[in-house]
Amino acid sequence: MALKAALEEHDFRSDCSIARTLEIVGDKWTLLIVRDLMWHGKHTFQALQGSAETMPTNILSDRLRRLQAWGLVEKRPYQERPVRYEYRLTAEGRTMEPVLKQIMRWGHENLGGGFHDIAG
Amino acid sequence: MALKAALEEHDFRSDCSIARTLEIVGDKWTLLIVRDLMWHGKHTFQALQGSAETMPTNILSDRLRRLQAWGLVEKRPYQERPVRYEYRLTAEGRTMEPVLKQIMRWGHENLGGGFHDIAG
Repeated sequence: MALKAALEEHDFRSDCSIARTLEIVGDKWTLLIVRDLMWHGKHTFQALQGSAETMPTNILSDRLRRLQAWGLVEKRPYQERPVRYEYRLTAEGRTMEPVLKQIMRWGHENLGGGFHDIAG
Repeated sequence: MALKAALEEHDFRSDCSIARTLEIVGDKWTLLIVRDLMWHGKHTFQALQGSAETMPTNILSDRLRRLQAWGLVEKRPYQERPVRYEYRLTAEGRTMEPVLKQIMRWGHENLGGGFHDIAG
């Protein structure tokens, strides 16, 4: 698997599972991309850029590349002439859903944010 | 409550609960401080600095200040002459435990990180 391969090449700063996870998604933006791919049907660069948080282009590119390098997202052509790409969570990427939900719950209960009711 | 007061002064980038939470803890370090205060009995600046991830001093100061500003951590003197301070999670800070656990679980299952068995 891509995630396994990335793991072998990476030297984590500690053995702590939290510290390791934050090396991949510990910033203000990455989990918003995962959110948009997971729940909001945003699969093109343009759609991802159009979210309410207006992610800067360079940050979006960088984070998508990182998510791909970790095997959590894959980029694939969905149209030819001109070729256009879409981004999809891999099976490993989808395993982040409980993390998203827990963070959402906290923000909803403590920061007055919205609650996205996930079917299924 | 301090968290409520901070909320009233802050203009979040969106209504999304995840985006809001990440404005406070979305970086590589903040949740490690919460982890150390929550589970590892590290309550002084020096103890927090001594964690395996060797957090840079300026980042540790900055993140502790931010956690205090949000009412998630409080700083209080535990000794006089010379006065020394300790950091403690507030009741609101402690509500982050399920978030930490879920992130830990993900890192354990996917990144080969350790698992901290929380009593209680």
